[in-house]
This record gives sequence, C-alpha cells and structure tokens, in this order.
Amino acid sequence: MSWIDIVEVAPRDGLQNERRHFATPRKIELCRRLLGAGVRRMEVSSFVNPRLVPQMADAEALFQSVGKDDERELMGLVLNRRGFERARLAGVGSVNFVVLASESFSQRNQGSSIAEALAISRELAAEARSSGMRYSVTIGAAFGCPFEGEVPLARVLDLAERLAGDGLDELGLADTIGVAVPSAVEAMAGALAQAVPGTRLRGHFHNTRNTGLANAYAAVRSGFAALDSSLGGIGGCPFAPAATGNIPTEDLWYMLDRMGIETGLDGEALLAASRWLADELGRPVPAMLGRAGLFPPRQGPADGCH
Amino acid sequence: MSWIDIVEVAPRDGLQNERRHFATPRKIELCRRLLGAGVRRMEVSSFVNPRLVPQMADAEALFQSVGKDDERELMGLVLNRRGFERARLAGVGSVNFVVLASESFSQRNQGSSIAEALAISRELAAEARSSGMRYSVTIGAAFGCPFEGEVPLARVLDLAERLAGDGLDELGLADTIGVAVPSAVEAMAGALAQAVPGTRLRGHFHNTRNTGLANAYAAVRSGFAALDSSLGGIGGCPFAPAATGNIPTEDLWYMLDRMGIETGLDGEALLAASRWLADELGRPVPAMLGRAGLFPPRQGPADGCH
Repeated sequence: MSWIDIVEVAPRDGLQNERRHFATPRKIELCRRLLGAGVRRMEVSSFVNPRLVPQMADAEALFQSVGKDDERELMGLVLNRRGFERARLAGVGSVNFVVLASESFSQRNQGSSIAEALAISRELAAEARSSGMRYSVTIGAAFGCPFEGEVPLARVLDLAERLAGDGLDELGLADTIGVAVPSAVEAMAGALAQAVPGTRLRGHFHNTRNTGLANAYAAVRSGFAALDSSLGGIGGCPFAPAATGNIPTEDLWYMLDRMGIETGLDGEALLAASRWLADELGRPVPAMLGRAGLFPPRQGPADGCH
Repeated sequence: MSWIDIVEVAPRDGLQNERRHFATPRKIELCRRLLGAGVRRMEVSSFVNPRLVPQMADAEALFQSVGKDDERELMGLVLNRRGFERARLAGVGSVNFVVLASESFSQRNQGSSIAEALAISRELAAEARSSGMRYSVTIGAAFGCPFEGEVPLARVLDLAERLAGDGLDELGLADTIGVAVPSAVEAMAGALAQAVPGTRLRGHFHNTRNTGLANAYAAVRSGFAALDSSLGGIGGCPFAPAATGNIPTEDLWYMLDRMGIETGLDGEALLAASRWLADELGRPVPAMLGRAGLFPPRQGPADGCH
C-alpha cells in the first residue's frame, strides 16, 4: 500500500477568494473538522497584506487557535519578507513561499520580479533553517499563465534548480489557472527528477478545465510525494482571472482510496465536513462525491431504480 | 501524433434522460452542429421501447434526417432483438448492443438475464455481419453496479471472451454509474489485452465522482482506441440511480489536444455547439471548458486581473 500526502488548503486557498467574510471562529471550526477527518498537513492561512486579501487578515489568530501539534504540519503561506516575519512571530512551524513562473503574474501576485522573488527566497530559506522552520516553495503558474500564455518547461526547471540550491523541504508545482494536462505533469516530473534529484514534489492543481484529477493521477504515477486539495473543491485566486477551486479533497480521496493509495483521511468524515462547509457558505460546493455517494455504498445497495 | 476516436453520445446518452421533450428538429440540429465540429463517430439514438424511454421514440426519423455518410459512423444503440430489427430496417450502418456485467442491473436495464443477453448478442453479431453492419457491444456497469456494488474483473473478462468469440468490431467498457478509477481502467485494459488480444477497446466513462477525465487518460495510456463523450457532459441513465452525464466532449478534447493527441474535432466549434445546447436545454451544462475558456487564449492574453 503506497502513501500520498494530501495537503488540505481549504482554509487558505479555499477561502481567500470568498466575497462574504468567513469569520475566524468558523475558520477554526473548519480546521477542527479537517483535522478530525485525518488531515495531517494543512495550509491554515497566508500572511499577506490584509488590505489586498482581507479574508486572510486573521492569520495570527487562526494559528494561535488551531494550535501546534507535533503530528500535524500546519503551514502558512508567505509572499514576501514581511509575511515571513509575521509567520515566524506567530510561531508557524512550516512556511510556503511562492515564486511565479511568469514575470507578469509575479508583478501582479506579489509586486516583485521573478529575480527579486528568488533573492527573497534565498534569504527566507536560510532564515527558516536557522529558526527550525520547515521551508517549501511553490512555483506558481508553472503550467501556464493567464497573462503570458504558455510557460516554457525550461523556465520551471531553471527556477527549480535555483530554489533547490538554496535548500527546501518540498517543491510545489502549481497549476494556478487550471490549464495543465497529464502529459505536462509527467514531463515536468521527469525533467525535475533529472534537474533536482531527490527533491520532494507537491502538486497544486485547480480543476478549471475538468483535468484536475487526471493531473493528480499523473502526479501520483510520476512520483509526486504530495498533492494539495481543498475540501469541497472551493477556492480561486484573487489575482488570476477565471481561476476556480482546487481539486476537491473528498473526490481526490475517493480516487486514491479506490486505487489502494493511503492518505490517512476518513472519507465519511470528509463528506460530513464538506456538507457543513456548504451550509456555512450557503451554496453547493464543486466536489462531486457528496452528491454521488460513496462506492461501494456503506449502507448496502441502492434501494431503487428511479 | 497519435489518434483517439471520440464517439459523440449526446444525442443518445445525453438526451435520453431529459425530462422535457427535446423535439426531433432540435436533435437534428444538434447532430448537424456536432458533425460540423468534426465528429466522425456518433451514437445518434437508441432503438428502445418508446413507452420506457420516450425521448428516443424518434430514432428512425433521426437516422433518416441525419442521413448516411461514408466518412462518418452513425451508431444506433439496441438492447434486444426488436431494437436490432428496427435499426436494420432504418438502414443503420453500425449498431451497439449492451450486455450488463451485473445480473440485477441486466434485469432492470433490459429485462433479461446476462445469459439471455449473451445469447441474443451471438445472434445479432451473426446477423449484423451478414447484413454488412458494424457490430459492437458495450459491457455495462463494468466497473461497478448500483445494485450489487463491486463487479469482479473476472466477470468482465469472461463476458469479453464470449462476446469476442462471436465476433465484434469494438468492445465498449462502460462505467455506467461513474465509480471507476484509473488503476481499475488500466488493470482491465491489461487483462483484456491477454484475454481478447487485438480487440479494439472503447471507454464509456461518466463523470460522477470527478474521476471521468482521469479514467479517460488511463484509457488512452493503456491503449484504448476510442472514448465515448457527450457534448456539454449532459446525460444520465434512466435505470441507474444517481447516474450523471458522460465525460464532456469539449473537456476531453481540451485534454487530448494539449497532450498532442488528434481527434479531428474543432474545439471552438464544439464550444459554440455546447453554448447552443445549453440555450436549448435552458440550463448550464456540466462541461467546464466553456466557462474557463481555451488555453492558450485564441484572442491574445487576458486583458485584466480582476
């Protein structure tokens, strides 16, 4: 039985684009339910400018409330030095930095060039190491950019080599706008295995063109260690047009579980948490497993035909 | 550049479960638009009992209107001898019969046992051959049954061997209720390559638990020659609870096209046809490409961030 880390990102990527304010106690409840469903790694919040992303203004409060846990990795996203300092002061044990693979998107997403982001990452990697924090970097828009279109694989490899050279615990590859296809995932994994051998890879796929779980499967096949997903498949990016949610955690769990791949998650608890989340949001979530039901049914066979 | 046959099933599997009547002239228009988008194989209708499936009552009229075309394969679904006779009288050049992989589902779907369905198929295969018709069989519920749960792979292999022994042009494998995962598709393909070597395989996947395109990718990887899909992802089965639509043709096209696999389809024409279909149905369709847009954008880069 093999294993894939599922990194739950609903509290961060899932909620960052919500129009209505999702109050801190409800976020704490969401985190509590996710941890109760077996989540071992979770991106709890991001330390970003609260004027630009007001939904994440309570990052410190959230980390304080969810608390520390030696068995779980609670991650904070940072986009610059200031965010990193906030995370360190808040006692966050694992930070994830972002470097965009496109110059236009880099300017829009974090107000810096790619070269500036790489320079910041080098400093943060060293500081995280000396502070005993886990440090990972996600290469955003790795499979395509909403502003520049195609992103050459060579650029992703170049970024990966520089980032790995500075030291990191895991390299994320984000299909921020949901344009990737399985062959691109496999080609990238193969090239990275040559360029940065031994580096743990994490896939971050958005299900925008219906290829999300196909890409997740390609990632599993090609040796990725971890996959990001969000409960209910909620989410989007405030700085990327037409971005939709992450691949849904419960649907990903279903696929992996039926393939005999362990994740430590409890499918029924995920479905219960997803129903709670849909109620809180006041709308159905994109995930499909909750509507379709588990298979085989846990309550015996279906009782009718129509 | 490799090739995959896409078999368009919106006029049959897509529309058979519509509550509102979809009038014959609109179906003809749908077929016309699909053929205009490059569709080369299409399941136009099914020759079934019009009292049980009233949406398909106009099968003869539809085949007569869409007409014959030496370059396109226009297929008719049949579930029994009577349906086959109707198809032959209507001059249908390609029929697809169904054998269910579960006894309970077989009784509900076509009112016969599996053994009876196999016996009918043997006769139909011979008659199709002597009439110069293409003959294929789809094994329904091959990946799981809504009434019996798990379907053993050995049963599918046994059915495939018997059906292939009687002669057929293509063997369909249907995930009727959308429970399959990629490893199951690959395991089945591998076992069938041993059990019925040389048999063309066609995958029929429903996107019920978000694994549809992942299964399609697994099918492509493991040598399937053809995939069924429906424009807009519309559909469902009147005899299977909680069944949802087929994998959407435009989303499948996107994935294959970006992977460098040819289908002969024109993505922009598919999207236009899908918009027309959604208007006709009066509701959004499940397909995602139309909402997200092509990538890279055909009209230049996105023009804004929010």
